[in-house]
Amino acid sequence: MADDRRDEFGLIDDFFAPLAKGQPGALGLGDDAALLDLPPGHSGVVTADAMVAGVHFLADDPPQDVARKLLRVNLSDLAAMGAQPIGYLLVAAWPRDTADDWIGAFASGLARDQALYGCGLLGGDTVATAGPLTLSLTAFGSVPAGQALRRDQARPGDCIFVSGTVGDAALGLRALTGDIAPLASADREFLVDRYRLPSPRIDLGVALRQRIHSALDVSDGVAQDLGHIVRRSGCGAEIKLGALPLSPAGRRALAVLGADAALALTGGDDYELLFTAADSRRQEILDCAQDVGLTVTEIGRMVEGGGVRVLDDAGQPITVDRPGWRHR
Amino acid sequence: MADDRRDEFGLIDDFFAPLAKGQPGALGLGDDAALLDLPPGHSGVVTADAMVAGVHFLADDPPQDVARKLLRVNLSDLAAMGAQPIGYLLVAAWPRDTADDWIGAFASGLARDQALYGCGLLGGDTVATAGPLTLSLTAFGSVPAGQALRRDQARPGDCIFVSGTVGDAALGLRALTGDIAPLASADREFLVDRYRLPSPRIDLGVALRQRIHSALDVSDGVAQDLGHIVRRSGCGAEIKLGALPLSPAGRRALAVLGADAALALTGGDDYELLFTAADSRRQEILDCAQDVGLTVTEIGRMVEGGGVRVLDDAGQPITVDRPGWRHR
Repeated sequence: MADDRRDEFGLIDDFFAPLAKGQPGALGLGDDAALLDLPPGHSGVVTADAMVAGVHFLADDPPQDVARKLLRVNLSDLAAMGAQPIGYLLVAAWPRDTADDWIGAFASGLARDQALYGCGLLGGDTVATAGPLTLSLTAFGSVPAGQALRRDQARPGDCIFVSGTVGDAALGLRALTGDIAPLASADREFLVDRYRLPSPRIDLGVALRQRIHSALDVSDGVAQDLGHIVRRSGCGAEIKLGALPLSPAGRRALAVLGADAALALTGGDDYELLFTAADSRRQEILDCAQDVGLTVTEIGRMVEGGGVRVLDDAGQPITVDRPGWRHR
Repeated sequence: MADDRRDEFGLIDDFFAPLAKGQPGALGLGDDAALLDLPPGHSGVVTADAMVAGVHFLADDPPQDVARKLLRVNLSDLAAMGAQPIGYLLVAAWPRDTADDWIGAFASGLARDQALYGCGLLGGDTVATAGPLTLSLTAFGSVPAGQALRRDQARPGDCIFVSGTVGDAALGLRALTGDIAPLASADREFLVDRYRLPSPRIDLGVALRQRIHSALDVSDGVAQDLGHIVRRSGCGAEIKLGALPLSPAGRRALAVLGADAALALTGGDDYELLFTAADSRRQEILDCAQDVGLTVTEIGRMVEGGGVRVLDDAGQPITVDRPGWRHR
């Protein structure tokens, strides 16, 4: 730690080489690059996301959770493409005063989640920085050629589905920063956990291949992310505010805040899958979700035209005015 | 720029989407992840390197050159594996006061070099940081299965070769920071250019497949990097200081400094290929290099045992004592 913190090679040997065990393509982290083999007939799927201390995580977040979130937000991107994870590269710019204990705990978080999601460390880079801790992870997956889920194939008439529950992470962040009181401690814990540890919906993404028209993972809130599908697919969307799946803890937190479900539409960090499919696939999709132990909820329809319209319980449109929503 | 700098989506549309044109797998940078197809029978090769302002480049370096160096150091890792480039992901943490002009110039540098090396932008992430500009690039390439060049297959008796000339970049950095005077301006320009713009030896790496036993690209100096081959392959190495290939400008700069070629052994940023091959392949390798328009120079032999020994013109060993070298 501090000035006598071990050098790059020591860091790699002590903390990161163990994460590459069992990954023959990593070549022991000792070569210039890693090898990545794809199953025959498969395309690779690649994504990278960065997290900066003070921007994407809080300075006192547990290092295990920072590591796990970094890996999971990337795996969530793979899930949104219907891909199966293979491995990842880690690039870390460490402040010079980063304690070895912090790095060790960070690596233990990666170890835990790479086992959970069936992937391993393939390589990367570690450098020093005078700025905040800056982490970047590139995740690799595979998908049968031509079967990747996309954002640009939604069609008017498609049902719009979302997995799990939404709004939890945004409420968890509010709970962490102190402005939801009184809230039962179990509810607080659930919501904070949803903020700190998204659950990439890998199995659901794989199960939905060839069954749906479009998909993405919700990172900026259902309203904004559905806008991406709308623009990329060249049609519109209508969703019912009352249909949004909320967790019991989320409902109670909204009640404490005196807010309605609209907050769950604009809150980020859900990392649930938002997807559209033909009406005729509804039952098949519900069955798929059940097979992987998840709920999916129908929240609206794709329509002709453009834009995302949100309807209240009376069927009246609500206009969006970030960061909140205003009724007309 | 400053607070009204456009948001992430604007940045991507204006500066980065054009870099993804012609890369169908990039999906217009509009999806969660990119698709990467490999030629049948090929393995993927993946590598990531980071650069931090103030550490890996100078704050007033031209943004085009920063971009090109970032791409080229990664392509050099692909070259060291004998891989052909396919594409790359870019992750950038921008300080909030980064000018659009800077980003535009940075993107133009990428555009120029991706055309030169036959690859394109596939995706990535851009975030804001309160710290220095932090750039990370993941490069993808492909190599016929089983033909990747490695560090761990050198054998006693192998000839050791290096491409191009070494020491130029280290001397260029010294020239930039002001302590080589008097030096002819053409020499200064050549050396600074070698520091700012490494030349990934892609064609040579491809040509050397199945002809050599081990390879890497020289980033920390021939002496230190040869140590990686030595340790990974479980043998030793002897190199002749007098055999190191120096450029005319490099020779003149060493003379101005009153230094000998040892400086070129420990200087970094050469990005030449250092490789070992059976004696019987010598002529074939020289021919290969000529075919791709490069020189390669034999600088020593792999031997039994371990460690890297450097011999002076009298055949006497020199001991290493970084950052310089001391004669016994």
